[in-house]
Parts: sequence; structure tokens; C-alpha cells
Amino acid sequence: MDLHILDHRLRVISISKSGLVHFTHPLVKLIFLRDRTRCKFFSLTETPENYTVVLDEEGFKELQPSEHLQVENSIWLPLNVVSNGNASSSSQAVGVTKIAKSVIGPLAQQHVREKDLSVVTATLEEEFNIFREEGGESVPVHCQDDVKDVQKNGKEALRPMVHPVLIPQNQFCVMSLDPDTLPAIATTLIDVLFYSNGGPKADGESSPSRDLDCIKFFSFSLIDGYISLVMDTEAQRRFPADLLFTSSSGELWRMVRIGGQPLGFDECGIVAQISQPLADSDISAYYISTFSFDHALVPEEDISRVTAMLQHQRTEPDAS
Amino acid sequence: MDLHILDHRLRVISISKSGLVHFTHPLVKLIFLRDRTRCKFFSLTETPENYTVVLDEEGFKELQPSEHLQVENSIWLPLNVVSNGNASSSSQAVGVTKIAKSVIGPLAQQHVREKDLSVVTATLEEEFNIFREEGGESVPVHCQDDVKDVQKNGKEALRPMVHPVLIPQNQFCVMSLDPDTLPAIATTLIDVLFYSNGGPKADGESSPSRDLDCIKFFSFSLIDGYISLVMDTEAQRRFPADLLFTSSSGELWRMVRIGGQPLGFDECGIVAQISQPLADSDISAYYISTFSFDHALVPEEDISRVTAMLQHQRTEPDAS
Repeated sequence: MDLHILDHRLRVISISKSGLVHFTHPLVKLIFLRDRTRCKFFSLTETPENYTVVLDEEGFKELQPSEHLQVENSIWLPLNVVSNGNASSSSQAVGVTKIAKSVIGPLAQQHVREKDLSVVTATLEEEFNIFREEGGESVPVHCQDDVKDVQKNGKEALRPMVHPVLIPQNQFCVMSLDPDTLPAIATTLIDVLFYSNGGPKADGESSPSRDLDCIKFFSFSLIDGYISLVMDTEAQRRFPADLLFTSSSGELWRMVRIGGQPLGFDECGIVAQISQPLADSDISAYYISTFSFDHALVPEEDISRVTAMLQHQRTEPDAS
Repeated sequence: MDLHILDHRLRVISISKSGLVHFTHPLVKLIFLRDRTRCKFFSLTETPENYTVVLDEEGFKELQPSEHLQVENSIWLPLNVVSNGNASSSSQAVGVTKIAKSVIGPLAQQHVREKDLSVVTATLEEEFNIFREEGGESVPVHCQDDVKDVQKNGKEALRPMVHPVLIPQNQFCVMSLDPDTLPAIATTLIDVLFYSNGGPKADGESSPSRDLDCIKFFSFSLIDGYISLVMDTEAQRRFPADLLFTSSSGELWRMVRIGGQPLGFDECGIVAQISQPLADSDISAYYISTFSFDHALVPEEDISRVTAMLQHQRTEPDAS
């Protein structure tokens, strides 16, 4: 398998719930008006606590400093796993877990910050051919000798579950959208992203999402012209059914949310704690990290196995 | 003819050019998300100086006080002229000038503020059956005796042109839009309203609008579920051709802009200065008042007559 270090230098930002209104102008621009900005990597994820924005430095310039904005100081690099010459995408759910294990497991003890890049290549070069994207070209990356000794520190050790796990009741959809049809869902998407908290309710907006067992979670990303959306079935019903695509009709996912309190960026290995046992059990999963929590999406039909597995792991951390 | 005093209590607001970004959230809500607000009367007009917002009190609540916001203190009442049982609308251009003359001429010496309502009815009751809309019912309004003596002060006197008149080179379109198709033009409308100043240019955006002879003017209104748009042909080209309707294909208008400096709301009779000679010459016109200027739109083919008429009036104010 090949691992590509993409040509994006990313910032990770948190916007407070009450502060989002002050960023409507730049965010609407970044989401809907690609011709107005040079940003090529943008993602916005709403969780119950806040909004997480991950975007490249061109996009970051659009956001004015504010008391409502919390900026993580590091530059982050996105890694893209390519198998059999095809980039892993949202339409190829099978195999994602194995990939996640291969990439995330070995990196669990290391940050994926730009300043850690030499450590990343040293950690992963046994399992991957590593390339760095530079101006559209893939340049092979080789490990420097002086960092080889950081390699494989505790690589194979199974990590005990440290953080509590929440499995909310909502069912989620992982979808893609043709960028040319983005205008057709603009008002609905704007409504869901910027006006779903407070004010008179829109027709068809019911209250179950406020139940304690359900979680507010909505994610939009526009990366190199590709749009991905993750939302629960309640939000999905507000969109035209014929414009959003899933990898297979009616595919539903459940969420495993990791962390009972904000985790912080200095704490690593959180995704690895869950990705490894999921991969060992051949259960597919999507992973979405936000400013405060990590989230894994697993197929609806596997949720009872996942629940049992996580309980087992929690009570006997060294047994599986 | 019947004159209906509509059941809207309006505020008139100016937003500075640089301040508009801070009002993106409430304005997008008022324009696109009718289910989220109780506002029934909303209009937004961009001129070179600022943005004028006219909206009812439910809409006014959405706008937070700000240094970028200038609020005219009065409550204003909209008047609607009904001829032969049909409300005059943007699809009935013929006759608009005569109506404008009938309504605006007599009122030129009086404000149309709520506190002046008794004066309004006294001024207009000779020419109109006057009704006040109250909760969906039309209630006849009759003049109170104690204000009858304010009537007809100088009513027939031709007013001299006081303010300079500018006739920019752009051609304008007056259009309507089915509210159900508003989502289809949302991203274009958002782009034109909120992002047309500064930033990288969108494709197809050319520079002629920055010519000194052309003027920046764009107006959107959503009143009781009806949408009207006024824009120049350059802006029109950015919208899908099949969604915006004009009263007759290819109908183009030129603008007569009154006032070389901001006029202020205490100055009255400005529209009357131009509406009376236009009506006398049987030239159709739309009138759009903004925070600082008044604007009349006249048919392209009549612009040379209008220019000659205004020059004549200016040099010989008592001759026509």
C-alpha cells in the first residue's frame, strides 16, 4: 500500500456554539463560493460542544481572530492511503478499517504534526511506500537515519481503553455530493449548519434529536473538489433524496464516541484504541476527529458486536 | 382607485458597506429561511454608498444594534394602490407612473410616517377610497375633521427641481421570482449580495461596473411571499435565465438617481419632483427610495425624452 502525504498544510480550529453566527460570512464563502477563495481543504463538523473547522492556510486567512475562536497552534498534514492505485474514498467502505489500523495504529504514539514528519515516515515506512505530494507530483519520501531509532516504540502493544465510550442512538449516513449540485442544497445546508439551534422550528423538524440518547453531529467537508457529508437520518430527511449519494442504498452507521471530557490534542492513541480491535474483528469503520472528541462510525448491523467488544476490552484490557 | 394602508409597521435602516459582513447571519435568514422568522416585509437595496434595509418589526428584531447600523427612528407604513380590484404589481408596469403621481404627488408635502397617518388620509381621501389592512381585513378609513385643514397645502403647485439628477449608463431589469425557486438561485444571490466587493473575482465578473458612468445598484424584496429583484444587466447574466421573470421579454430600464448628496428622511417631495413630469409625459416609472437617495427607473426607449425633460425643468422650473 502507498501512503501519500498530501500537499495541504492544515489548521485545526474550534468555534464556540454561540460564536458561529459571527463566522457565517467566511464559512458560507468557504462552503459555497469556491471561485472566491483559494482554499482547497475545508471541513466543518458540529458536535454538542462546539464546531471543529479543519482547513488549509488559504482558508484560515478568511477567519478573523475572535474570542469565539480557539486555534490549535500546530500545522497538520493529511495522510491519504492508496490501495491498488485507487485512493480510499467514502465509496469504498470495505477495507477502511484495515487501512485505519495500518496507519493509525503505528502512529498512535506519534503526533502527525508537520514538525513530526520525519518521525512519521520512520514509523510507517515498513508498511507503506510513502510519497509527499508537492505541486501535483508524488515525490518518494525516505527515512532519515537520525530518526530511525524512534521507530516502533511500543508499536505492537495493545493499548488499554482509557476513555469512556458513548454509543448514541442516532443512525448516521455517510454521503457524497456532486459539487455542481451543491447550489441545489444550499438553503437546506445553510439552515442545518447555521440556524438549527434556537428560533422558530422549521417544518418537519421534530424534537427527538434533543433526547439524551441522541447526539448532535453533522460534518461537511470539501477537499480538492470532493464533498462528503455525515449526518443522522433526521437531518438527512431535510435534504432532497435524489442529490446525496451513499456507497450502497440505505447504508446506516452507528457512532462510537470516545472520551467523556474534551481530550485535547496532546493526547494521542485514542483512535488506535478502538481501530485495532475493530480491524481485528473485520468491522468497517470511519473515523472523524474533532477538537474535543474522536468518533468512529461502524455499520448498524455490527453495533452489538462492537458494544460487546468494547465492554470486554474495558473490563479486561489485555485479554483480546 | 383604492388605497390600502398595509398591516406592516416598517423600520428603515442603513448598513455600512464594510459592516454588511457582520449581518450575514440575520440577512441570510430573512432572505432564504422564511420558516425561521415571522418577518413578512423585507427589502435590501445596495447602492454605492451603503445598504438600505426596510423591514417590519419582526424582522427588525433579528438585527443586533451595531456601529455599522443606522436606524431611522420613525415607524413607516406602506401604501398599496389597487386599481380595478388588482393590486399594482411589478408585472403591471403600464399605469404605474399615473399611480405614483396620484399617491406621491399629494403626499409630497407630508411624511408617510405612522404618526402622520391622519394627515395622510386627509390628503388623499379626495382621490382614493382608503382602507387600512388589519389582521387580513380591509377597514375603511375616514378623515378626522380636526386634520382636514392640513389638506391640499400647495397640492397642485409644480415643485422646482432642487437636487441634481444622475443618469448612469447601466441598463436595469425589474424581475419577479417564484419563492419556491428561490433556493435554486441562493448561491448566486448570496454571492452577488455579500461577496461582490473584494476578494478574487468570480468567473464572468468583468470590470465595466467599476466605470464611473455605471452605478452599483441591486435590490431584493420579499413582501408577503412575493419576490422582486432589480439589477443591472451585468448582474442579471450571473443568474439562470429561466428562473427570473420580467413583465415582457427583454424589457430594459434606465435609472434616474436624484440627489448629489445624501438627502435624509426629513426632506420630502423628492420623488414628486420627478414623478409629476414623468406622468404628464405618459412615461412609466418605478420608484425605489433608499436611505440616502431616490431612484426612478424609466423605460430605455424613453431615456432621451426624460433627459431632455429634466434639463428643461432644471433650467426653467416653472415652464412645464
